[in-house]
Amino acid sequence: MSQSTEAAAFPFETIALVGVGLIGGSLAAALKRRGLGRTIIGVGRDAARLAAARARGLVNEIETSLAAAAAKADLLVFCTPVDRIVAGVREAAPHCRAGALLTDAGSVKGPICEALTSGLPGGVEFVGSHPLAGSEKQGFEFADPELFVWKVCVVTPLSQSSPLARRRLQAFWEAVGSTVVEMSPGDHDRVVARTSHCPHVVAAALAATLERADVPLAASGFRDTTRIAGGDPDLWTAILLANADAVLAGCDALGASLAEFQAALKTGDAAGVKKFLATAKQKREWLGEGARPK
Amino acid sequence: MSQSTEAAAFPFETIALVGVGLIGGSLAAALKRRGLGRTIIGVGRDAARLAAARARGLVNEIETSLAAAAAKADLLVFCTPVDRIVAGVREAAPHCRAGALLTDAGSVKGPICEALTSGLPGGVEFVGSHPLAGSEKQGFEFADPELFVWKVCVVTPLSQSSPLARRRLQAFWEAVGSTVVEMSPGDHDRVVARTSHCPHVVAAALAATLERADVPLAASGFRDTTRIAGGDPDLWTAILLANADAVLAGCDALGASLAEFQAALKTGDAAGVKKFLATAKQKREWLGEGARPK
Repeated sequence: MSQSTEAAAFPFETIALVGVGLIGGSLAAALKRRGLGRTIIGVGRDAARLAAARARGLVNEIETSLAAAAAKADLLVFCTPVDRIVAGVREAAPHCRAGALLTDAGSVKGPICEALTSGLPGGVEFVGSHPLAGSEKQGFEFADPELFVWKVCVVTPLSQSSPLARRRLQAFWEAVGSTVVEMSPGDHDRVVARTSHCPHVVAAALAATLERADVPLAASGFRDTTRIAGGDPDLWTAILLANADAVLAGCDALGASLAEFQAALKTGDAAGVKKFLATAKQKREWLGEGARPK
Repeated sequence: MSQSTEAAAFPFETIALVGVGLIGGSLAAALKRRGLGRTIIGVGRDAARLAAARARGLVNEIETSLAAAAAKADLLVFCTPVDRIVAGVREAAPHCRAGALLTDAGSVKGPICEALTSGLPGGVEFVGSHPLAGSEKQGFEFADPELFVWKVCVVTPLSQSSPLARRRLQAFWEAVGSTVVEMSPGDHDRVVARTSHCPHVVAAALAATLERADVPLAASGFRDTTRIAGGDPDLWTAILLANADAVLAGCDALGASLAEFQAALKTGDAAGVKKFLATAKQKREWLGEGARPK
């Protein structure tokens, strides 16, 4: 598909990005590079940071008033921490134009989507999104226009979500390079507990066991395994609290798996230890098959 | 230091690499590229594999007889799985020339070094090594002449190890680009339990929780955290069994840390969750300071 065909099919003219950090900044950069949308509004609380993002050419307009931005936008994408999304959407929605679509980029979907099933004005719709893209880095200084390319974006419509909103949201994420997967918010949260939230917890638990004297012997295996523990503690506290049930279930499953391994190791059961490692290796190899979304 | 000065100071002429897989093959490639040693002998049980390694130019000579290789070498490096090192050294030592040095590249040092403190002929010394370099890949096809550059190699002399052997071994690992750190075998094993063996176990436990339907949502965080779970189950079973006490202690510490996190999450204790994550992030940042050995 050519660039111009993509641009022609793109269903939004004015896009407000609420929160211009790594994700909001990368979305801005992705839209700009592809010539998508006419106006990109950066929305946030810190006027100086917004001005800096505009000076970099990431956004055309900046707004510290969410209401003012909402009044102009066809699409609002909330790229704020997960514990601020519901309040932000509720604050913006009454100021939105009829036909406006609101979405987010939060790592947890159940509590957000459930809270927003009602109470929005007629003609204004919220459908949740979670682009599986990011980094332990923070801030629009690390914005990457290709961050969403070859990545999956999970969209979590509810039964009452309109087919039009779903189509428009899919077109948005596909335009920045992602593959859209639709799931229910609850299914999303259970899967990401296993694939993202519990790995984060475990990476943190591993990093927390490090002692100063160990540092010279912490080679690439340790670095890779703990990389995500470098993420922002505030953002992650909010994510883990918002998905607590699924994260606790995931931790229990992990704990049971570790206990089984420890029992085998304690008794010198080589076959048991090998089975544990071989199962893991085999499952790890599934990822090779699905490395790049089609 | 210029290449020629390094080559002149290199204390070995004939080097036997016992086991020509990723590590043995990479050592061969590293020696070749730097013009170190006159003759590199590849030693193994599979004549066809050895012939293939020679055809690639990795080694000058090949031997399926460990005794024959031992009779010719100034230095023997055992790059075999950890559960075959002690037997290999015992088999080779009686055939070694006076002044020959034997070492290994095994990930566990205590059981190996203790078993080899006695029983070797006079004039033949074993001092353990553990180059912190590797990959989840296997085989000399992945040999990398720069694998040891900027990496730490732990050398674990015992009180009876001669200063000459220690100096020669240090010169060997430095010549292929590594920084040598000397530790006791026991200290080494306790540290690598935390920095390598427990991370491997945890990566495997995480990978083992994956379900088929999760694959599209397993993004870079999951991939990085579980990468080392792709390692060879046989090699790792031997490593974990050989370092069982320290690994079990490490698993207990991890389990306690996880349980503390779970208790905080269960009660919605945001401050407790954040403290867990912030401690981990802070310790993870130590690695930045020591990223490259001097």
